[in-house]
Parts: sequence; C-alpha cells; structure tokens
Amino acid sequence: MRTGEAGAEPGGRVTITEIARQAGVSVPTVSRVVNGRSDVSPRTRARVEELLQRYGYRRRPAAPGTRAALLDLVFHDLDSPWAVEIIRGVEEVAQAEGVGTVVSAIHGRSGAARDWMRNLRARASDGVILVTSALDTVLHDELRALGVPLVVVDPTGSPALEAPTIGAANWSGGLAATEHLLSLGHRRIGLIAGPPRLLCSRARFDGYRAALEGAGLPLDESLVVPGDFHPESGFAGCEKLLDLPEPPTAIFAASDQMALGAIEALRRRGLRVPEDMSLVGFDDLPEVRWSAPPLTTIRQPLSEMGKLAVRTILKLTRNEPPDSPRVELGTELVVRSSTAPPTAP
Amino acid sequence: MRTGEAGAEPGGRVTITEIARQAGVSVPTVSRVVNGRSDVSPRTRARVEELLQRYGYRRRPAAPGTRAALLDLVFHDLDSPWAVEIIRGVEEVAQAEGVGTVVSAIHGRSGAARDWMRNLRARASDGVILVTSALDTVLHDELRALGVPLVVVDPTGSPALEAPTIGAANWSGGLAATEHLLSLGHRRIGLIAGPPRLLCSRARFDGYRAALEGAGLPLDESLVVPGDFHPESGFAGCEKLLDLPEPPTAIFAASDQMALGAIEALRRRGLRVPEDMSLVGFDDLPEVRWSAPPLTTIRQPLSEMGKLAVRTILKLTRNEPPDSPRVELGTELVVRSSTAPPTAP
Repeated sequence: MRTGEAGAEPGGRVTITEIARQAGVSVPTVSRVVNGRSDVSPRTRARVEELLQRYGYRRRPAAPGTRAALLDLVFHDLDSPWAVEIIRGVEEVAQAEGVGTVVSAIHGRSGAARDWMRNLRARASDGVILVTSALDTVLHDELRALGVPLVVVDPTGSPALEAPTIGAANWSGGLAATEHLLSLGHRRIGLIAGPPRLLCSRARFDGYRAALEGAGLPLDESLVVPGDFHPESGFAGCEKLLDLPEPPTAIFAASDQMALGAIEALRRRGLRVPEDMSLVGFDDLPEVRWSAPPLTTIRQPLSEMGKLAVRTILKLTRNEPPDSPRVELGTELVVRSSTAPPTAP
Repeated sequence: MRTGEAGAEPGGRVTITEIARQAGVSVPTVSRVVNGRSDVSPRTRARVEELLQRYGYRRRPAAPGTRAALLDLVFHDLDSPWAVEIIRGVEEVAQAEGVGTVVSAIHGRSGAARDWMRNLRARASDGVILVTSALDTVLHDELRALGVPLVVVDPTGSPALEAPTIGAANWSGGLAATEHLLSLGHRRIGLIAGPPRLLCSRARFDGYRAALEGAGLPLDESLVVPGDFHPESGFAGCEKLLDLPEPPTAIFAASDQMALGAIEALRRRGLRVPEDMSLVGFDDLPEVRWSAPPLTTIRQPLSEMGKLAVRTILKLTRNEPPDSPRVELGTELVVRSSTAPPTAP
C-alpha cells in the first residue's frame, strides 16, 4: 500500500513531513496522531488519519508468515541488573504474539545510538520500547519521522518523551518503605536518596517525608544523604549516616544496589543487620533474596512493565490508542530479614 | 537466487534433504558442510558446496540496507543472572556489525520452543546462538534442516550439539579456586558441587580434586556435598558441611549463587566470612562484588563468550570455518574479601 507520489522517500514511503504539509498541521501533531495520543482535536485527527490511511503510512501487523514481526527493546546500558527483568517480561508477551524482541544498548554514546537507528531502519521494526532517557532530541525526532510506534518504560521517571510511558508508583513505594520502619518503632530513619535530577528519586523522597509527617515526625535534613543508585554510593551514604553524632536506627535506601552497599559498610564496622540497623531497599532485584540478610524491599514490577509495554506497542500498531499516555504500576512492600524493631539503647 | 525446482519448499527454498539426496550423502553430512565443520572429506564437501551454491541455499550476509540482518540469541530461561552478561557481549559485537540481536527464552517447554522456531522461520535470522542444552532433538533437526548457522554458548558443558561450541575452562577454574584456599593454609576444604549431569560440574570437581592431590591431600568424600547451582542448595550444602563432626575451614562453592546461599547459612549461625569460614565462588556475577563480604570467585568470561559466538556466526555466514569446533575461554581467580588464612583452632 505504499505510494510513489511526490513527497515519498526513495523506498516509496511517504514522509511524516509530507503528511503534515498536506494536512496543514505540524509534524508533532501528526506524530501525536500516529502515537495514539489524546491531545489532538477530533477534526485534526480525522484529517491526519485519512492521509495516513491513504498513503498506507501506518505500520500494521503483517499477516502471519508474510514477514518478520519485530520490536526493538532499547536500553541505555545492559549492565543494570534490572535489564534482564524487563527483557523477560517483554520477551514473554512478544514471543507469544509471534514478535521477535531485538535487544540493543545505546550507551548514551551518539555513535552507538546512530548505529542502532540505522539498524532499526534496515530491519523495519514494528515498534520501539525505550528503557532509557538517553535518546537525544535529534534521534527522537528521527524516530518520530520514521513513524515507528514508541513506548517508554521508565522506571526512573525521566522527563517524558512524546510517547506513552509506563512507570512505577515511586511515591507510594517510598511511603510504604518508611511506614514499615515506623511501624516497627523506628523514629530516626535515614534515607540514602537517588539522584535528584530523576523524578523517581524525588517521588521516593517525598513518600519518605510524607510517612514521617504522617507519624508527626519533622524531617531531619542530616538524615538524608545523596546517592546515585549504585552500590558504592550506598556504602558511602551509610558511612555518612553512621558518622552522625546520633546515627539513625534504620535506613531506607532508594535502590537495592545502594542497600547492598550499605550492608557491606555495616559489616565492615562489625554492625549487624537488622540487630544494629534495619534496612529497606527499593526494586526487589532477584539477588536481594540472597543478600546477607535477605533484604526487605519495595518491589518494582519490572517484568510487568515490560509486558504492558509490548501490549501497548501492539495496540499502537493496530491504530488503537494506549490505555493512557502514562501508566504507573503499583509497587509493593516485601518483608524479609533486614528489618526489626530498634534495640533499646 | 531461490529456485522453484522439485524438492524445493513452498517458499521456493530447496530443502537440505533434497541437497543430501542429490549429493548422495546423509543429511547430517550436508549439515556438517553447512556448519563449516572439518570432519567431511574434501570431495564430499566440494560436491555438497556445489549444490548449495547452485540452489542458493546458504544464507550470506546481505548488502547493507537491502534487508534486516538478525541473529537469534536463545536462552533456556531469562532468570539466570548471567543471561544479561551474555546478552551484553553478543549485542555489542552484533550491533557494531549492523546485526540485530533477537533474544528469546524457550523455558524447556516444547510449546515455547515451537513458537520460537516458527518465529525464527518467519524472520529469516542469519544465525542462532543457543545458550542452553534444552533444545530437544526434533527442534535441533529442524534447525539443521533450515540451514541456519548455529553456535552453542555453553557455560555448563552440556552434551555437544552438532555445532561449534564456546565454553569456559571449568577444570582450571576448579583447580585455581582450590589452590587459592590451599595457599592460604586451609587443609579441610569443602566443596558444594554442581549437578553431576552437567560436564562443567564434573570438570570443576576434578579441578578441586586435582588441587588437593597436588598438595598431597586425599579426597575426603564427606566434604563434598551436592548442589544445583541455585542459592537454596548452597544454603543447604553449607549447613551440611557445618554439621560435620569436623567441619571444613573453607568452602569452594561451584557457583556464585550457591556461595551467596552459603554466606546466608553462615550468617544465621553467627559465623563470619572470612574469619570463621573462607569461601570461594564460581562465575563472578556482577552482584558478588557487593555481597557481604565481597566474594572471592572464579571469573567466567561470559560476555567474551557471547562476543566470540557472534564472530563465529558471522564466519559461518561467510562460508568460513570456525576457529575450532570447541573453544574454551580461560577462567580467572578474582580475590576479594571472602577468603583468609584459617584461624588457629
């Protein structure tokens, strides 16, 4: 159904710019229609849809066997331990639908990102699931121009791209972690926070503060130390808290990896978890079931987020709108062995 | 270059069976030629190559831009923490070569494996990297019949499929782990072994025994307890060793995950690592850099194994033979904080 009219690319494919020109609207508006977003007037949507239809612009799922069905799953890096959780969810739904999952990492390097973009064009993927905020604006525009459906899986709450986004309930998670420690009787609760530039860090911090306020406790700024989600920063943050004149009796680390770093800092000082310090993490990575001790944490539904991303991509390829431009899946407290009531001083 | 002659499949593709018939050889022989193996007589190889060429049978890398270049990376499950290590290595080399990496899991369920096989046919992948021994014989034959180059990445030393295989030096790793403990002065060294049906378990056990023999120590069967590579079995195995009338002063766990289980068993009994028990793992998963304490272990070069697998696939697609039907990459002792000289009793 591709045309060879003026405005079409060499491959016989009409460009999104040409659609925008003929519809008398901007490129971003066409993109909003392509991506099934709701913030377009019905009249404009109808006009753009009509042109998209006429030029056979929208990718539709091919009849079985006629061509390869693929989606691209793109990470910033593949060294994050939660990458495999997301891959597992995406792969499970995609494979059952006959769709192959092409996994890539773009490393925040423009070279790797351009390699990926070139490869994406060549393989004519049906959709892109982006698990990163690292796509620069130029590439984002190229993606939009390609007209490939895009869904963002966004565990970190990065600034939204113009695409349906699937995140996790970070504020509720921070609240639940802190309320758990309060319910055990802790009153001095430290926080090893995430990078403040990420929305998820701010949401977890606000959940922590809301729980304290709910218990009538003022926020003590000295109990909040910065981290970057990696274990090294959890180690350093925990040391800082232990060096306070009056250290906390419990710590909420805003990522499991920082909690692991904190456990090691405590171990080196001969302090036991949970006897000398309670500890709650955030993520529920598979490995913290076997940390020493097994970690109480907030479960992020990473593989469910991946599954929902595939279902959303498949909707977009069928011209159906996503359930919502932004969905947050619930987080959940998982109590293991790293939390206990404070020991009487 | 596909033909519509008798013996071709509906899609116009000649079958490997037809090639074998015309060449007057068996299907496995044709497969050996397709897979670049050396155990075929030059005359037979020439005859088969000629037929493959005539029917355009062999997949060759397409000119850039003409079609999607893909390879399939297939796991038994995506819950193994080393999966992401292999994905990272494969993706890095593949993407630089313009090849997309389609990641799948077949879960040892024939349903999922058949889904995957059907999807593989549809997307016309250039090659398959299998990281599992779970492919049943029927599927293996189907793969062969498809004529897709196959490389097996084999960290566990499973029985070889008829394909180039990339493994790790398991025996040397077991030797190095045990020699490290001996050099610290340990004489009673326990082993939490892997499943005996896997060659890698036997190789690691033999390395352990060889190190003991090299030090003039007899093998004490009571110090060898069974495991299945998962943390639970490391926990149980460690408890068994601690319940011996004369427990060991050090333990070699044949996987990092079992070592994590052992650390937790020790913690629950109030025993410290390495003061009360030294511990060596095997794998060097990213997470054991932050176990409590950081784990001394044997590094398996998982991402390098993935990289070599891609290079081997690319050779096969260019009709070049692999470097060797079986390559083992070296393992390496990484000393961290879980090992120390035994404390005087």
